[in-house]
Amino acid sequence: MINYEALFKISYGLYVVCSGSKEQGNGYISNTVFQVTSDPPRFATCCNKDNHTVGLIESSAAFSVSVLQIDAGAGIIGTFGYKSGKDTDKLKGMEVRYGETGVPIVLNDAIAFLEFRVVETVDVGTHLMFIGELVQTEVLDDTVDPLSYLHYRKVKKGVAPKNAPTYMDKSKLEKSKVEQVFAKYECPACGYIYDEEKEDVKFDDLPDDWVCPICGEEKSEFIKL
Amino acid sequence: MINYEALFKISYGLYVVCSGSKEQGNGYISNTVFQVTSDPPRFATCCNKDNHTVGLIESSAAFSVSVLQIDAGAGIIGTFGYKSGKDTDKLKGMEVRYGETGVPIVLNDAIAFLEFRVVETVDVGTHLMFIGELVQTEVLDDTVDPLSYLHYRKVKKGVAPKNAPTYMDKSKLEKSKVEQVFAKYECPACGYIYDEEKEDVKFDDLPDDWVCPICGEEKSEFIKL
Repeated sequence: MINYEALFKISYGLYVVCSGSKEQGNGYISNTVFQVTSDPPRFATCCNKDNHTVGLIESSAAFSVSVLQIDAGAGIIGTFGYKSGKDTDKLKGMEVRYGETGVPIVLNDAIAFLEFRVVETVDVGTHLMFIGELVQTEVLDDTVDPLSYLHYRKVKKGVAPKNAPTYMDKSKLEKSKVEQVFAKYECPACGYIYDEEKEDVKFDDLPDDWVCPICGEEKSEFIKL
Repeated sequence: MINYEALFKISYGLYVVCSGSKEQGNGYISNTVFQVTSDPPRFATCCNKDNHTVGLIESSAAFSVSVLQIDAGAGIIGTFGYKSGKDTDKLKGMEVRYGETGVPIVLNDAIAFLEFRVVETVDVGTHLMFIGELVQTEVLDDTVDPLSYLHYRKVKKGVAPKNAPTYMDKSKLEKSKVEQVFAKYECPACGYIYDEEKEDVKFDDLPDDWVCPICGEEKSEFIKL
């Protein structure tokens, strides 16, 4: 039997992965960045084939990883995680440095960044896995812990975007808590769920100017499930 | 420039990865287990080519992942992380279940386990990356957080074993703190460093029955660096 709750026990960080150039750059939120060999140090990241950034990584053969800090704002996660670079210039207004390979590196809410040259690409199904060799790295703030996916889920009540490797189709989760007296409200922009069972305040009792903690969508746009 | 300290900002969990069978099973500590696609849910793990377990995963085409809990004891990390299955039967005395594929699953200090059938193997240099499809998963304890590599390093003062993808050659780390008045003592069994600069107690002042927090090696065996 597969209990999908077990998948949430795997630990991840949260990162902004960028690629492209000064003229055409883009990025997305990733939780799958990890070291795969120690000598030389190589890292892998998975990118959904539907992501706008996938083509940029393929053509520039490079990408950057900005490590988000534990208190990263909803703004940066909303912009890079729940919008598409096909429709918006995600880097507009962001603090960006350009790396040795020319890829953009997002500095907002970042405690460190790593820049990679792609040495191998593996097709893993819905995603491409890019394996990269280190070009440069920098620690920007050594006093703050990185944001973990567990913290993002438990404290920030965030959910994985649809293109993430860890996206969870809600129907797959066990239905043990179905007979609830609490209601759930879904953000139409990013899929964030306000679950009254886990909150101290009923949705209706939230102030009118309350916004989605993930993407900033207005309360009035939420859909009762 | 590459600042190797930046590599420590990437988040990982800590797992016991096992393979083989009832007759010949083995496992090792891994921090690189991660989901690579959501549909179907596929996971990857990296295993050093020198690890005894690598041959078992290749021949059985399956492996299990036990998610360690935040307070996992030094015993399990010492056994699976710093000993070789070539010399010892690591599973002896452990609480083990055998999966649908026949691989051993370690239950000690585990809050969940996942069992995989290997669908692809990628040679990434010093390590092989095994990509697996879910066979079964189970949550064993939903009240305790998983152990993160950050917690293991910061709170438990642990270091990565030599065969880990995240093993760090100490000479690579920046030498900014070289002119210290504190001494460092290294565990000859597992490489754990007792760094007086980071501890409240000088090494000599530790009780004689103090043992390595990682592998249990005796204080008298430590080597002053």
